[in-house]
Formats: sequence, structure tokens, C-alpha cells
Amino acid sequence: MYAKVVENIYLLVIVTLISVLQNAFFALKVEKECNNQNVKTSVFERVACANRNCMDAYPTFLAVMWCAGLCLSQAPAAFAGILYLIVRQKYFVGYMGQTSQSTPGYLFGKRMLFFLFLMCVVGIFNYLLTRYYGSDYKEYVETITGAASALLLLP
Amino acid sequence: MYAKVVENIYLLVIVTLISVLQNAFFALKVEKECNNQNVKTSVFERVACANRNCMDAYPTFLAVMWCAGLCLSQAPAAFAGILYLIVRQKYFVGYMGQTSQSTPGYLFGKRMLFFLFLMCVVGIFNYLLTRYYGSDYKEYVETITGAASALLLLP
Amino acid sequence: MYAKVVENIYLLVIVTLISVLQNAFFALKVEKECNNQNVKTSVFERVACANRNCMDAYPTFLAVMWCAGLCLSQAPAAFAGILYLIVRQKYFVGYMGQTSQSTPGYLFGKRMLFFLFLMCVVGIFNYLLTRYYGSDYKEYVETITGAASALLLLP
Repeated sequence: MYAKVVENIYLLVIVTLISVLQNAFFALKVEKECNNQNVKTSVFERVACANRNCMDAYPTFLAVMWCAGLCLSQAPAAFAGILYLIVRQKYFVGYMGQTSQSTPGYLFGKRMLFFLFLMCVVGIFNYLLTRYYGSDYKEYVETITGAASALLLLP
Repeated sequence: MYAKVVENIYLLVIVTLISVLQNAFFALKVEKECNNQNVKTSVFERVACANRNCMDAYPTFLAVMWCAGLCLSQAPAAFAGILYLIVRQKYFVGYMGQTSQSTPGYLFGKRMLFFLFLMCVVGIFNYLLTRYYGSDYKEYVETITGAASALLLLP
Repeated sequence: MYAKVVENIYLLVIVTLISVLQNAFFALKVEKECNNQNVKTSVFERVACANRNCMDAYPTFLAVMWCAGLCLSQAPAAFAGILYLIVRQKYFVGYMGQTSQSTPGYLFGKRMLFFLFLMCVVGIFNYLLTRYYGSDYKEYVETITGAASALLLLP
């Protein structure tokens, strides 16, 4: 039981752990700016805002990644998760470095989230097909998903 | 293994996907107001505040819904989840449309969350009963829960 | 199937339920201050800020606790979760009671989160060892983790 469960989620757990490390990095940045905020309020505000935008999207990201990993297959989901974390890092750094007139918007990583969302939909759809028509396209779909996840690397 | 797992969670996954779509809708609203915020700051602030209130409660909602679905049965949990999302939509729209003197409060969907919480407690209690006394009331409890979830439709 | 699944997560579910109760307590505090905010704005701001800091860390906490519980063993994970909730309660109350010049920082419960994070890493590492070398140290690791979790009680 134990090994079987972990086998199906260990890549997802690893990505989750990396995202937690990143959260800790963001939080430490906020903590640091919070302590010497008498120097420059605008820097603190920008870091806090970037952190809040990242945290707002975090539960959505976790939910979609885990659903995609459980419903379809974990390797492409974990891969898309890693790419999302890289985009988030760039967003956070970009937000901190920008002068206030051209901060990046509220949303980021839309492509990865959309891909993970699509994986969930395909997984559910495939399950319903299996249940009501008895035709299982899982291996087929998994291959396509694995190949499609490489497209996320396109800039 | 795979089909068995998905069978027990697919309704929860569907509700989660709908909630993700709703999150994206909220985030797009914020993004839109963020870009033309030089027109009216108060509108942006109200949308951002409504979004933040919704996002604050989101992890709690996900956790309770998934626990209720895993510990007891997924159909009533998913049903209560859908009702919660409808209430959240109304709350967000109401927040945006209100003039500032009468915004709806910080909390919403208390009844649905309470119902899901109760489902979790009953599920855990039933598991402990099964374990220590060997008496399984699961089918009985599931029927009652299914019937009770209809009461959530009362205004 | 059902009893087996619940057996492996029921402690985690109980801690999650307690954390949800605590979230509700925090939210009610904010709601209360929100309604009579014309009296003192600073009190409302402090409560809202404490609540936001707690909510920012909440998804991270849930993710780490569940991963640790699923990958290694649930009893130490649930124990560390309970300790985290106690620290969070203290943080919230401390934040409300402080005058503004000496609020506690942005982060709290770092030790518990670090312990849970370590549990995840050890669990994943043990799984990979089991898979590629066939040597399972799970019972051994579980005993050590159970003993180490008592160290968290040190002030």
C-alpha cells in the first residue's frame, strides 16, 4: 500500500517541496524588508505586493497540479509545475527590480496553469469514457501529454 | 489502482476545476482594473479586496471539501462545494457592485463550510467507531448526508 | 479500500479540521473588527494584517503536513501540525495585543515547518532507496522521526 501510493505521487511531492522552498525564499525577502522598512517604504511595498500576488495564485496552482498528476500522469504534471516555479521566480525578481511605473501585471504562468487544467479535463474525460464505454485511451493520452508538455518550453 | 482512485475523487476534481475557473475569472477582473486604474482607484480597490477575501478563504474551502469527500462520500461534498462556489460568485459580484458604505462583510458561505466540516467530523467519528467497536454505519450515514445536503438549497 | 485510506490519513484530517476551526476564529475576529472599524482603525488594521500573514502561510503548511504524513508517517506529522497551530495562535494573539512599534515579524513556526519539510525529504529519499536498491529503512526512519518530533517541544 505505502510504496504504491508514494510511487504515484513522489514527483508531485518533490515539486511541492521546491515550491515550499521558494515560498520560504519569498517570505524571507519580505521579512528582511519588513525589518529595515524605515529606509525605503516603496521597496517593502513592492516586495510585499509581489509576495501577495504569488501567494494568491499558490493554492490554485497546487490544486491544479495535484489533480492533473492524480487524474492523468504525474511526470508531465511535475514538469509543468517546475516550469511554473521558474516563471514565478522570474516574476518575483522582475517585480522587485522594476520601478513602480512598469510593474508586471497581476497574473503570470497562465500557459502552465492552462496546460495543467487541460490535463485534468482530459483525465476526467478519459475516466468517464472508460466507465461508460469501456474504452481506455489512457496510454495513448499519456504519450500525447508527455509530448505536448515539451511545447511549454517554447518561449 | 488508477481507475479506483479516480472513481473516488472525480466529482471533487470537477468541483476543484470549476473553482479554478472562477479564480481565473476573479484574477482577470483584478488584472483588468489594475491596467486602467488611473480612471477610478476605488473600483480597483474594491475588486482587489473582494478577490483577496475570496482567496483568503480558498485553501480552507479546498481542505474541508477534500477531507469531507475522502472521509465520508464525495457526492454530497461536491454538491456543497458547487453551492459554495455559487455563493462566492454572488459575493464577488455584490462586492464589486456595492457603493463603499455597504459592502458585504468579510465572511461568506458559512453554512456550506459548516456542513462540509460536519461531514468530516462524522466521517472521522464513524471511522473510529468502525475501528474500535467494529460497527460500520457508513451506508446509513451516507444516506442521511445525501438527504441533508438538499437542505443547503433552502435560502 | 475506504477504511484503508482513512486509516492512513485520519490524524491529518483531524489536524486539518482544527486548523479550519482556527481559521474561522481568525476570520470572525476580522469580521468583528470590520463592523466596528469606525472606533479604531489601527486595531482593525492589525487584526487584518495578522490574519493575512497567517493565511499567507496556510497553504504552505497544509501542503507540507500532508506530504510528510503521506510519504513517511502520519503521527509525527500530525503532532508537528498541532504544535504549529499552537504557535500560530500565540502569534495571532501577540500581534493583536502589541502596540504598533514592536509587532512580531512576518514569519512564525519556522521550526515546525522545517521539521515537516525534513520528513518529506526523508520519506522521498527512503522511497528512492527502496526502489533502486531494494533496502527499506521505513520502520527505522519512522522510529527516529517519532522520537525526534518530541524535540519540537523544547522551547
